[in-house]
Amino acid sequence: MRDVYQEQLDQLAEVLATMCERVAAALEKATRSLLEVDLQLAEQVISEDVHVDEIRAIAEERAFALLALQAPVATDLRIVVSAIHGAGDVERMGDLALHVAQAARRRHPQPVLPDEVVPYFAEMGRVGVALALKAAEVIRTRDVAAAAQLEEDDDAMDDLHKHMFTVLMDRSWSHGVGPAVDITLLARFYERYADHAVAVARRIVYVVTGQMPGPLTV
Amino acid sequence: MRDVYQEQLDQLAEVLATMCERVAAALEKATRSLLEVDLQLAEQVISEDVHVDEIRAIAEERAFALLALQAPVATDLRIVVSAIHGAGDVERMGDLALHVAQAARRRHPQPVLPDEVVPYFAEMGRVGVALALKAAEVIRTRDVAAAAQLEEDDDAMDDLHKHMFTVLMDRSWSHGVGPAVDITLLARFYERYADHAVAVARRIVYVVTGQMPGPLTV
Repeated sequence: MRDVYQEQLDQLAEVLATMCERVAAALEKATRSLLEVDLQLAEQVISEDVHVDEIRAIAEERAFALLALQAPVATDLRIVVSAIHGAGDVERMGDLALHVAQAARRRHPQPVLPDEVVPYFAEMGRVGVALALKAAEVIRTRDVAAAAQLEEDDDAMDDLHKHMFTVLMDRSWSHGVGPAVDITLLARFYERYADHAVAVARRIVYVVTGQMPGPLTV
Repeated sequence: MRDVYQEQLDQLAEVLATMCERVAAALEKATRSLLEVDLQLAEQVISEDVHVDEIRAIAEERAFALLALQAPVATDLRIVVSAIHGAGDVERMGDLALHVAQAARRRHPQPVLPDEVVPYFAEMGRVGVALALKAAEVIRTRDVAAAAQLEEDDDAMDDLHKHMFTVLMDRSWSHGVGPAVDITLLARFYERYADHAVAVARRIVYVVTGQMPGPLTV
């Protein structure tokens, strides 16, 4: 018979994985609201963010209860502390998806994105969603190799982020300062979203190995 | 005689407060490097960020040891969990000061900021540094009223941040897209720095009262 304590640890991981899936769905919708100039979808992301915050509060309460009542040590303690960190990261991913949706709503019915940058944001959305779903998987499986894979996937996001600056700084940019400011912030939101997904995966490496992987570039 | 355990809790808070003072100094220097186009100062901030990361690692190790060896409950557990969160926030403040310094270095010997926005960034720097120092004080004193004060001080940063967009979007903006992109990101770094200082103070309210203050606007 599995004991209650081990089940509580597993449930904590499951809450966190579910939270990752929620923010993956949020970013997918936020990106579509941006690309398809869809106000209703933007509103949906904005109103649903509170659920991510609620799940985060549940994760923290459970982690706190485990610490207070079970006094975990070694790997179990690492699981709980990593869940506390992870819940913070994933809540922030939800906030960043929310910011994308807010940008779509702010400019509606105008599109935020000039046509020539739409494909880059479609790709940033795709990479971001994939990273969040992989983070959920890594939380469930504790697969260290898959966790390391997230850092490589994040390189694609960094390249897209850098490329957006090249596009904005190019002499051929004809849309002026306003759209450039929007795009600068939006690209930053996607890049930060990806960084937090990587941070979650790195914490899982720490749970399994007892060591944080090498320094994260910021 | 004070027991070793209470002393360890106090030391953990002291490590975190010291970390706040370090990132206050980092932002002060980074802002000067930006305003005075001072490459040497920018390099100093960039090379010193590793010390903040080291202090964060020390804070986490001590928090982890306290959890494993002392199994704190109630207020003591809240102190340790809040220190874990706080160390993450303050490390991020250091990263954001680093980003400001990196922007100053990237454009050197050109100034990043056109003359007309210099006073706003001087003020954002001043507000940010004051918030980090107040956070240090709140960690040491656990003064809930002072913690609430940080949220009000942060309103000044939010106003400055919003005002920068008004300046950038104005028809009289004559510096083109490149400086607008730099300023958009820099203003965001200062605003996020302030948000993290507020988050640290909110965690102290939680330590003292057992309740997080009302929702933080993001």
